[in-house]
Amino acid sequence: MKHTSAFASELTWPDYHEAMKDGRTPILIPLGSMEQHGHHMPLHVDVLLPTEFARRVAVDMGALVAPPFTYGYKSQQKCGGGNHMPGTTSLDGATLVAALKDVIKEFARHGARKICMVNGHFENSWFIIEAIDLALRELRWDGITDMKIVVLSYWDFVDPEAITKLYPDGFPGWDLEHGGVLETSLMLALYPDLVQLDRALDVAPASFPPYDVYPVRPELTPISGTLSSPKEASVEKGHILLEVCTRGILSALQTEFA
Amino acid sequence: MKHTSAFASELTWPDYHEAMKDGRTPILIPLGSMEQHGHHMPLHVDVLLPTEFARRVAVDMGALVAPPFTYGYKSQQKCGGGNHMPGTTSLDGATLVAALKDVIKEFARHGARKICMVNGHFENSWFIIEAIDLALRELRWDGITDMKIVVLSYWDFVDPEAITKLYPDGFPGWDLEHGGVLETSLMLALYPDLVQLDRALDVAPASFPPYDVYPVRPELTPISGTLSSPKEASVEKGHILLEVCTRGILSALQTEFA
Amino acid sequence: MKHTSAFASELTWPDYHEAMKDGRTPILIPLGSMEQHGHHMPLHVDVLLPTEFARRVAVDMGALVAPPFTYGYKSQQKCGGGNHMPGTTSLDGATLVAALKDVIKEFARHGARKICMVNGHFENSWFIIEAIDLALRELRWDGITDMKIVVLSYWDFVDPEAITKLYPDGFPGWDLEHGGVLETSLMLALYPDLVQLDRALDVAPASFPPYDVYPVRPELTPISGTLSSPKEASVEKGHILLEVCTRGILSALQTEFA
Amino acid sequence: MKHTSAFASELTWPDYHEAMKDGRTPILIPLGSMEQHGHHMPLHVDVLLPTEFARRVAVDMGALVAPPFTYGYKSQQKCGGGNHMPGTTSLDGATLVAALKDVIKEFARHGARKICMVNGHFENSWFIIEAIDLALRELRWDGITDMKIVVLSYWDFVDPEAITKLYPDGFPGWDLEHGGVLETSLMLALYPDLVQLDRALDVAPASFPPYDVYPVRPELTPISGTLSSPKEASVEKGHILLEVCTRGILSALQTEFA
Amino acid sequence: MKHTSAFASELTWPDYHEAMKDGRTPILIPLGSMEQHGHHMPLHVDVLLPTEFARRVAVDMGALVAPPFTYGYKSQQKCGGGNHMPGTTSLDGATLVAALKDVIKEFARHGARKICMVNGHFENSWFIIEAIDLALRELRWDGITDMKIVVLSYWDFVDPEAITKLYPDGFPGWDLEHGGVLETSLMLALYPDLVQLDRALDVAPASFPPYDVYPVRPELTPISGTLSSPKEASVEKGHILLEVCTRGILSALQTEFA
Amino acid sequence: MKHTSAFASELTWPDYHEAMKDGRTPILIPLGSMEQHGHHMPLHVDVLLPTEFARRVAVDMGALVAPPFTYGYKSQQKCGGGNHMPGTTSLDGATLVAALKDVIKEFARHGARKICMVNGHFENSWFIIEAIDLALRELRWDGITDMKIVVLSYWDFVDPEAITKLYPDGFPGWDLEHGGVLETSLMLALYPDLVQLDRALDVAPASFPPYDVYPVRPELTPISGTLSSPKEASVEKGHILLEVCTRGILSALQTEFA
Repeated sequence: MKHTSAFASELTWPDYHEAMKDGRTPILIPLGSMEQHGHHMPLHVDVLLPTEFARRVAVDMGALVAPPFTYGYKSQQKCGGGNHMPGTTSLDGATLVAALKDVIKEFARHGARKICMVNGHFENSWFIIEAIDLALRELRWDGITDMKIVVLSYWDFVDPEAITKLYPDGFPGWDLEHGGVLETSLMLALYPDLVQLDRALDVAPASFPPYDVYPVRPELTPISGTLSSPKEASVEKGHILLEVCTRGILSALQTEFA
Repeated sequence: MKHTSAFASELTWPDYHEAMKDGRTPILIPLGSMEQHGHHMPLHVDVLLPTEFARRVAVDMGALVAPPFTYGYKSQQKCGGGNHMPGTTSLDGATLVAALKDVIKEFARHGARKICMVNGHFENSWFIIEAIDLALRELRWDGITDMKIVVLSYWDFVDPEAITKLYPDGFPGWDLEHGGVLETSLMLALYPDLVQLDRALDVAPASFPPYDVYPVRPELTPISGTLSSPKEASVEKGHILLEVCTRGILSALQTEFA
Repeated sequence: MKHTSAFASELTWPDYHEAMKDGRTPILIPLGSMEQHGHHMPLHVDVLLPTEFARRVAVDMGALVAPPFTYGYKSQQKCGGGNHMPGTTSLDGATLVAALKDVIKEFARHGARKICMVNGHFENSWFIIEAIDLALRELRWDGITDMKIVVLSYWDFVDPEAITKLYPDGFPGWDLEHGGVLETSLMLALYPDLVQLDRALDVAPASFPPYDVYPVRPELTPISGTLSSPKEASVEKGHILLEVCTRGILSALQTEFA
Repeated sequence: MKHTSAFASELTWPDYHEAMKDGRTPILIPLGSMEQHGHHMPLHVDVLLPTEFARRVAVDMGALVAPPFTYGYKSQQKCGGGNHMPGTTSLDGATLVAALKDVIKEFARHGARKICMVNGHFENSWFIIEAIDLALRELRWDGITDMKIVVLSYWDFVDPEAITKLYPDGFPGWDLEHGGVLETSLMLALYPDLVQLDRALDVAPASFPPYDVYPVRPELTPISGTLSSPKEASVEKGHILLEVCTRGILSALQTEFA
Repeated sequence: MKHTSAFASELTWPDYHEAMKDGRTPILIPLGSMEQHGHHMPLHVDVLLPTEFARRVAVDMGALVAPPFTYGYKSQQKCGGGNHMPGTTSLDGATLVAALKDVIKEFARHGARKICMVNGHFENSWFIIEAIDLALRELRWDGITDMKIVVLSYWDFVDPEAITKLYPDGFPGWDLEHGGVLETSLMLALYPDLVQLDRALDVAPASFPPYDVYPVRPELTPISGTLSSPKEASVEKGHILLEVCTRGILSALQTEFA
Repeated sequence: MKHTSAFASELTWPDYHEAMKDGRTPILIPLGSMEQHGHHMPLHVDVLLPTEFARRVAVDMGALVAPPFTYGYKSQQKCGGGNHMPGTTSLDGATLVAALKDVIKEFARHGARKICMVNGHFENSWFIIEAIDLALRELRWDGITDMKIVVLSYWDFVDPEAITKLYPDGFPGWDLEHGGVLETSLMLALYPDLVQLDRALDVAPASFPPYDVYPVRPELTPISGTLSSPKEASVEKGHILLEVCTRGILSALQTEFA
């Protein structure tokens, strides 16, 4: 189905209703955070990226994109620098679960039966799962049992071939990719005006023990707030990532929502 | 204080930190909804408008604008057409309260002591109040007792003089202004591409008894979803509104946050 | 149906059961607060008044009155003087929602299908709405889908003709009627022993900016705690109000519960 | 301290404030239920009785009585006939806890440091305990650590001597006293117009196994809804009970609140 | 049905599934606490005892025993010494309710229709009741209406004949049995290595007024933490208790789950 | 410090108090689940293993072990086979958070300042984090700011050298280790009587797409319920794992709790 806009919120209600009422149009919900991303990137990287992936996929398959979740779960030191960092603005787990549960149920009420969570903030993952479980439970109580909900994080579609190109000197692992080559390259390709690469600090990859300590020890987070250096980021790498992730997500949703 | 962007989420964390750490920079939180606004306007009118008012005021006074709340409390028939309408996507009261409470507390943790809620969706009002009360309570438990939080809805700054210009044939009251002259004029002035005035239905003002009935009787909502006709909306009226409301909000915040 | 008492709680269970089991008897739930009402009236004005309106209507139409809610939502400065005032004793929003939701569900379990909320405390309004929405949701999960719930505040039935009689010098608006002519006149007509008009302070109408500030500035509330002067209150005005509101509520419920 | 009324809600706020502000005046909160009490008594027995005990004690010691809790925890078969009975209207445990917690905290904010729960509905007991624990916790977070809260059920002050007079043929135990000699005698002494002794069923004492089954088996509750027969109730026994319980409660509070 | 182990958690899933899928096998959930039990017994007495009763009954009737609840509701001074005592580790009421509700619903999802709560900690009682009520409600929303849940505390099966043997000098009442003859005798019979009778303090029975005070007055709890002396405990008494309670519980469940 | 038992619940309260009161003794809380672990292992593998690691470490360093959490968060298909599997018995996220938060706060009240979560069920991870965050917040409100809480999962201490020995044919990743070589070897070394290796199914490693679908597609879980084959498990491998994990945890805690 072709829509005036890929963003559901930009449609009039009659157009939205036409798209959603029979359950055939998938709706994609981007989930991000307001979280520091180093000295060189703004606080809403985790919102911009999944929203753009969702938009690209939605345009290709005739789906719609819901308003993104712009506040996410508390940043953790080993994957996001930690919630003590300035600018990081987070929700309690129960709050995120409730908000996402409510929204899923509303879309189901509108007719949606195919929903995809497009996550851009690792820390959201388990609260997304819980929200879906609770939403499906309550929808079941309302007699709605034909929902199909896909959950994905865009970086999980980066394949080994792409990783070789992106990290010729070795892949540090997704955990340390906070504010590093992956996110910075994507931002350079999509929102270059929001990246100040000259302010980036070329930090050594963060190093953590195989356990967590609370309250966090701030000194374990590199002073930049990123967990690895973004210095090797580039527009070209951004385009590689855009291509491989968009293709992967599109293929997944075409399979699941056929 | 001058910032690279009025939007907090577009800053790097060092810039955000510099702005917020000593509590002098106000932060404005726009609150809207995903709600039908007739055949002629999109679903995010209640997000776009308070965000733009917040932006204008923030630029003028050196404040920052937080990511807006894009999902709001359940639309009511007598002020928003009703939550049964397609496209209207709402949160439970407790969810909205929790989300706003969490965000207020996070900004306070960053140093903010001057916060303004810029509301664009009438139904949010009482849950904003509750969120503030609970946030102040918990901040007090953390020893933070010097918060000042202003709550406003932009339309409350339209003065009698402007009303005379906007409604030469008589003012229907704010309640019936859902999708009517006020919102449509503002959208025409700010986002003309998102308004399809030719699709607008010239409905008679909605008429309701002096009480509410649940479940709502859908037939009481005009078929357009708006509660009055937007036909008399114009770009000029939009500019009148922009001017009077921006000025009013700015003046209020300069007084309160001096 | 004629009952031994209009108050459900004064019936034996067999009599109550006979009245409620087939869903034909409406049940009216008064909702008030424990809130300061100036130097001249007691703290339970908001309970006494809706309870008496409910009783009068119930007697006329063969309905029953449930035990009133005697604690309400937090008093707001611009309509109730503010929650900081001595004597004002309020519930968190979630508490009021839960209590009302539970009670609605219990009456539905007993057979009630026609319920009317008779509100006497403005601040309760939105939490009543939320309670009804949640109760209807859970009742739906229990297969009960034929509920009809009316929500009203008694003052909304004062018509323009009555306003002219009550406020010959101009109507200050319902917001400022806290502890003023309306409530005081009704109390004089119904519970004269509980009114000490000689202690009333003849304050000027309160004046507020078009926004709210939290924590409240106590100095904006008149020292009386009322938002306007009760000096023009009278027994006669009380009878006018009793007549017009009772008639209006009765007519509304006869229409809705026919 | 002498008050115009023993009922806090009947005072003006200046009078209430004068009484409460320095923490010396105890405030008594009656807790009841809306619960069937047989064919011969109304649904609010559990409200009327503790309220009257509270009033008598308050008058004697210069304390105040708060508005009673008129809805209580779910009636249990072995002490109240069961929640399945018509007329019995109950709250979830969490609701009762939240409401009582909120009210305790509000009275503490007003200055109260001596609070007494006067319980008239056995099933409330453990939720009162939890509410107090949570209220004391949150008050502690607010720096208030000098609260003293007494919890009592009026029947616990009936001494062996009184029991001998009241039950010459042997005491069935408090559990089976639901709607029996104790409550009926008190109602006869206090509210004879609300008792229809001629409608009372002379049931044999209920007999239960030493465990509970859910959902309840309705047939285990006597058809009257009472758990024993009220036939031996009398005005005289009511006066004995009034005297011994009032004296006992008064003595307890004088000791604790000295 | 004969199982490899009476403990559900010791089975493989195919064996568990075979036992549970058709709803015929009862499952017994022991509920205890981590609570001080005097100078002579460990903190998990309230877990060990109901678990062992459950195991004995399960073996006899082919039922299964679920993992016990090892943390319970807050210890009360008049039946458990009070929650202020060192070692006593308790849950909020809402937490216990939620945990038990979740587990009941999970067993019902597996097929269980016969569930028995075997309580070993008096303070859990009312939160067990609430958990069952909420679980049955939600199961009903899922269309499951044929559950039967039995709740029991093992000591309620001690008959008068046994009491005479156990307390030749008079029975102090179950309330004061915390850490006294009952629990100590059972522990001596079952887990003698965990009892250090030589460290037991021979305290006088605790004496309390007919009401409760919060915060508790620690001095009302005997210095031992027990509410009566365990000195008269013996292995023989333990065996009497084991026999009478096991027999009673078995008989109850055979009746209820036939 | 040397204790009679490493298990806190096996101590008397005076002994527990002596150990905990000054905050020096660490307390270790094992967290597991009741979850299917294939045809060859019982449902409480995730409880037994972290409890034993905790015990070994506690004995070595003079710490104590709290009663384990025996019910955990909902099993996920890609790391635990999925919550639809028979025998898997799980808590809602909010329930697990609340229970763990309560227990942490209680231990802090007893004096504990060094707490370690020893996790044995991957799905618990994020709810442990949230529980700690909420507990630290509330403890802070109580003026307790010197807590140190370590969170670990025992498998994170398996080093590359051990992996080479354990998986000579290549490591499948921890996700697929559910019921595979790791857990089976540990159970063979510790609880051989609870392993029925002859019933194990030699399934191929599970294969999943890079996203999740809800409701789960049961056919993606191998029919065994395990995500890889346990056939290469052995007692020897169990001892390797015991040694490397115990050593690693001990070293971590000695460092953190020095």
